[in-house]
Amino acid sequence: MTDDALVIFTPSGKRGRVALGTSVLQAARQLGVDLDSVCGGRGICSKCQIAPGFGEFAKHGLTVAEDALSPVNAVEERYDRVRGLKPGRRLGCQACIQGDVVLDVPPESQVHKQVIRKSATERVMEMDPASRLYYVEVAEPDMHDPSSDFDRLAAALESQWQISGLEADLSVLRKVQPVLRKGGWKVTLAVSQDGYATRLIDLWPGLREAPLYGLAIDLGSTTIAGHLVALDDGRVLASSGLMNPQIRFGEDLMSRVSYVMMNPGGDAEMTRVVREGLNTLAGVLASEAGISGPEIVEVVVVCNPVMHHLLLGIDPVELGQAPFALATGQALNFAARELDLHALNPAARTYILPLIAGHVGADAAAVALSEAPELREDLSLVVDVGTNAEILLGNSTQVLACSSPTGPAFEGAQISSGQRAAPGAIERIEIDPVTKEPRFRVIGSDLWSDEPGFAEATASTGVTGICGSGIIEAVAEMRMAGILDASGLIGSAEQVGSERCQATGRTHEYVLQEADASGAARISVTQGDIRAIQLAKSALYAGARLLMDQMGVEKVDRVVLAGAFGAHISPKHAMVLGMIPDVPLAAVTSAGNAAGTGARMALCSRLARRGIERQVHHIHKVETAIEPKFQEHFVAANAIPHASDPFPELARIVTLPEVSFNANGGGAEGGGGRRRRRG
Amino acid sequence: MTDDALVIFTPSGKRGRVALGTSVLQAARQLGVDLDSVCGGRGICSKCQIAPGFGEFAKHGLTVAEDALSPVNAVEERYDRVRGLKPGRRLGCQACIQGDVVLDVPPESQVHKQVIRKSATERVMEMDPASRLYYVEVAEPDMHDPSSDFDRLAAALESQWQISGLEADLSVLRKVQPVLRKGGWKVTLAVSQDGYATRLIDLWPGLREAPLYGLAIDLGSTTIAGHLVALDDGRVLASSGLMNPQIRFGEDLMSRVSYVMMNPGGDAEMTRVVREGLNTLAGVLASEAGISGPEIVEVVVVCNPVMHHLLLGIDPVELGQAPFALATGQALNFAARELDLHALNPAARTYILPLIAGHVGADAAAVALSEAPELREDLSLVVDVGTNAEILLGNSTQVLACSSPTGPAFEGAQISSGQRAAPGAIERIEIDPVTKEPRFRVIGSDLWSDEPGFAEATASTGVTGICGSGIIEAVAEMRMAGILDASGLIGSAEQVGSERCQATGRTHEYVLQEADASGAARISVTQGDIRAIQLAKSALYAGARLLMDQMGVEKVDRVVLAGAFGAHISPKHAMVLGMIPDVPLAAVTSAGNAAGTGARMALCSRLARRGIERQVHHIHKVETAIEPKFQEHFVAANAIPHASDPFPELARIVTLPEVSFNANGGGAEGGGGRRRRRG
Repeated sequence: MTDDALVIFTPSGKRGRVALGTSVLQAARQLGVDLDSVCGGRGICSKCQIAPGFGEFAKHGLTVAEDALSPVNAVEERYDRVRGLKPGRRLGCQACIQGDVVLDVPPESQVHKQVIRKSATERVMEMDPASRLYYVEVAEPDMHDPSSDFDRLAAALESQWQISGLEADLSVLRKVQPVLRKGGWKVTLAVSQDGYATRLIDLWPGLREAPLYGLAIDLGSTTIAGHLVALDDGRVLASSGLMNPQIRFGEDLMSRVSYVMMNPGGDAEMTRVVREGLNTLAGVLASEAGISGPEIVEVVVVCNPVMHHLLLGIDPVELGQAPFALATGQALNFAARELDLHALNPAARTYILPLIAGHVGADAAAVALSEAPELREDLSLVVDVGTNAEILLGNSTQVLACSSPTGPAFEGAQISSGQRAAPGAIERIEIDPVTKEPRFRVIGSDLWSDEPGFAEATASTGVTGICGSGIIEAVAEMRMAGILDASGLIGSAEQVGSERCQATGRTHEYVLQEADASGAARISVTQGDIRAIQLAKSALYAGARLLMDQMGVEKVDRVVLAGAFGAHISPKHAMVLGMIPDVPLAAVTSAGNAAGTGARMALCSRLARRGIERQVHHIHKVETAIEPKFQEHFVAANAIPHASDPFPELARIVTLPEVSFNANGGGAEGGGGRRRRRG
Repeated sequence: MTDDALVIFTPSGKRGRVALGTSVLQAARQLGVDLDSVCGGRGICSKCQIAPGFGEFAKHGLTVAEDALSPVNAVEERYDRVRGLKPGRRLGCQACIQGDVVLDVPPESQVHKQVIRKSATERVMEMDPASRLYYVEVAEPDMHDPSSDFDRLAAALESQWQISGLEADLSVLRKVQPVLRKGGWKVTLAVSQDGYATRLIDLWPGLREAPLYGLAIDLGSTTIAGHLVALDDGRVLASSGLMNPQIRFGEDLMSRVSYVMMNPGGDAEMTRVVREGLNTLAGVLASEAGISGPEIVEVVVVCNPVMHHLLLGIDPVELGQAPFALATGQALNFAARELDLHALNPAARTYILPLIAGHVGADAAAVALSEAPELREDLSLVVDVGTNAEILLGNSTQVLACSSPTGPAFEGAQISSGQRAAPGAIERIEIDPVTKEPRFRVIGSDLWSDEPGFAEATASTGVTGICGSGIIEAVAEMRMAGILDASGLIGSAEQVGSERCQATGRTHEYVLQEADASGAARISVTQGDIRAIQLAKSALYAGARLLMDQMGVEKVDRVVLAGAFGAHISPKHAMVLGMIPDVPLAAVTSAGNAAGTGARMALCSRLARRGIERQVHHIHKVETAIEPKFQEHFVAANAIPHASDPFPELARIVTLPEVSFNANGGGAEGGGGRRRRRG
């Protein structure tokens, strides 16, 4: 008979011998097995539950006896009685090893829970948040050996959790004494460890049962989207968004920069309103999730460089002119209250991802973190479509990034019947190539407009306009139906053979819905709308093409469409339009809100933070504004689809009519490229 | 002929060989010589001035040729023309070594200037402030190789000054871009390095000529005293003080703690007013020194534990009851704005010295830092007299500390004719042992009251009351003149033989000045005043005696009286009163405001901060409140001087009359000790 036993942990497969009488939690720590515990082995938090296996384990050449673990003890019995323990489960801190045993660590008992991200590039993420809970029992004060309550609390964290060098904000120092006394010298600490500092963020009497929470914020020029995330397992408890209140200072970023140039001090006003917006959003999210603001201890923000500077209170004027110098680009970690985020815990921390370059922001870095093209052998083109498009091109060898000024057309702005994505907006369109008649679907209903019940289903909103994905489909469908020629001109009723093509001044428009007595709005696609979309898609394509030039490639293996809007784009229509290079349709995927996903990853994992901080140094930045080739590509990409590159993959699925309305159309527009978005 | 030369620096005596053509500044750095430079060797700051010596140096066996340094160059000529260079001086960054040479580094060119502290224990302090200026030349932005302005600034600091890991507050990040451009990419940085962080505090275009400034604050229960100090050489530019505005919540600390107990939230109000007080004081000091608030980048605060907690916004209620647990006691380093100190630089840092124990504060730590009993072989008793007395006893072997609740009597409070030290207050008294007639001096005049011209000299204020040092002398002189017996009773007119002893109720008072028609106030010393002083001095003596017991000694070698008030106490009178143990009078010295001196040391020197942080761990804390011996000593020390210890040294200079007024005095007071200040 030996005085130790073989312990095998599943699913990790870690194994080793431990002394008889060792608790399962101690054994896990000795063998480097990831077994959670908040109370540090006192039988109160139940985070260390394990499922012992008994009987024959042929695979391991092991027979586990029924008494391989110590019998259920009083602590476990009480826990089971009061809180309930799943059948077959034991508390790891109570059950002791008495013989060879196989122990399964269920997912919820793992500290570094592996979270499968549901995205195009399904990857496993490890939970490794900066802020975690630690239950400690603190020595009481002794007049004969004076020491401060905080010193004893820090000593308890060090002796019970091996975490040294604890520091505290004034905001939490003032809570230390009352909470220690209320908890009878037993408290749960929220401790943030990121970089060199170990900070006490908050503390609660006794054992805190609820997890800590964090916010992942995608701060866009137009909208601010936020997720409230539980920091123990990364689940999203609430998601919400609001318009960026800076919109009243300018729809796009450059008009906001101009506003500052024209109105000295205007940046302070924009800083104030965007911070107010974040506070509002935090309040909404906390309320939706049913938690209190002070339970939110971490905030991660991703945004473009102009929003970044305006959020931090830095005048963005340098970003509006060459050489587009950032004030700072490195990842930032500071107290959330410095951003006046008062809806959160007073000691909450903010982490802002690094920026990549003057026009390529933390949002692009978040996309790079989320999509990780550097982890793949094949060549990915990742396009995050917004008012500016962030474009990444790369594989395991090299990653390049640029930003391209697509303008707001893709978001339905500057489009005559355009509107933001909201119920009533046309999001899908099909045009019959023979009759030239359209049918469409609107947000809020699954019915097509020619299906029975459509009018009833949309009665509450009506059909109010066209959103971003709708306008892309409209233009592409018009091209496929021969309503539009390759140069982007809309034909006349006569040329097209449809009364829906109506003259308006010297050009034509294609009418999707006529106004009627019931109050329906007139919805059409005008020649101006086509031109706006042409400019936007040319900018997007030119950016992608520029990166391909720099990399010396003529084709990419896959295209990932990211962004809240990217998720809704039909790959076929994007390719008909010439937004993206020619690839097999199956190789075009949507990554959803990849920037938001990257923000959530940085919220849940310090490893992710360190990873993207390293990665941005390796990303090769390409400045579109100074590349003559960008202008060339931009001009060449005006046609639909553009003529500069072959689209053999597209030709396999779509035949585009060879029409030309130049000669006898109502207008006299040239071949395109007459306007430039940047000089 | 060799290609290197011998260089000897004075006064350090450092020497070594350097390659010919090496600049003096480079040579100094190679040889570890302390030669200042803000501009980093660009010939603009002139901080690196040296005085070369030529001719025979018998001591070094060296003859220095006239051409041992390169000729004065254009940079030096221009500097001399524009700014003026003292005869014989050279700029160390311009003059190059051409042969063996002796170079003197004048005091103003030393980084770590040695400052002689004028105090009882004259010691040399090295300037080593946390915040220093660095001139850097920053690379301009390049679109083709994008990097942020801050990154390039940090890189410049690293390459030009070997200081890495620069971080910046949001408050200074927003200044980086405009200042870099205004300075033509040449800027002076204020960088704070203390602990693990290297922080950019501020920056200015071009070379900043003025030094940085700091505040040393001695935050007392009654008064707040502050010094504005230049951080390059430690000189004090302005000193000022104001009443602690918390006084309206209670004269002494325990009444303020009681106020919080009775008025929940009252601590927040007290926190607010004391921070306002600091802002006011900072404004006064900046204005007196003719500098702007944002030039103040460091603040050091020393204070007792209750003031410490109230300043930090921590409820002090635990300090009012056993076991007197501090919330936190370690040294703190944080942003000054967290204390709402808005009159300073927005990124200014605050350093608060460590506390020693629940009743022994950062002010006592500052006294320990300033007086450093641990550096001496002889045994020092250091007494900082205030509303609480901080008492240190120690030598190189061991240092003990305690705090004793003397109450405000020594500060003239709770004394019938008492007043704070201000013009018109009696500060010195002599009583003729034969006639029992007094003469006195008041603050604001050097004349004694029996000298011609006294009335005229004091006409503007009159004689208004007795301050702390005056009441000590009054009581001691009354005892020496036989007006008071050893138990502290004032005799009647008959017993004493003076009409100045007047009956008031069942006791007597000694009248120093009668009220008259001209408006003069009646000033007397009452039996109640004597009792208050007896309680205060008993507490002080008992504390000192308790430390002596703990250390196992019967006598000390020297006594240091510290505190604003301590400086004014006459050693002889203190000993007649029995405030301090018996020592040769010559061994009693005054350290002035030792706590304030300690604050200035911590302001000017990181070494001093690290020193006191280590030292407080070695100081043995004694809690007077729980030591039965303290009560014994307190009771035994009631007599004047107390009877519990022999005073042979005192007997050599003073003979005390053996009078007793117990039997036939107007009063029937007992032997004393009937009141206790703590139960």
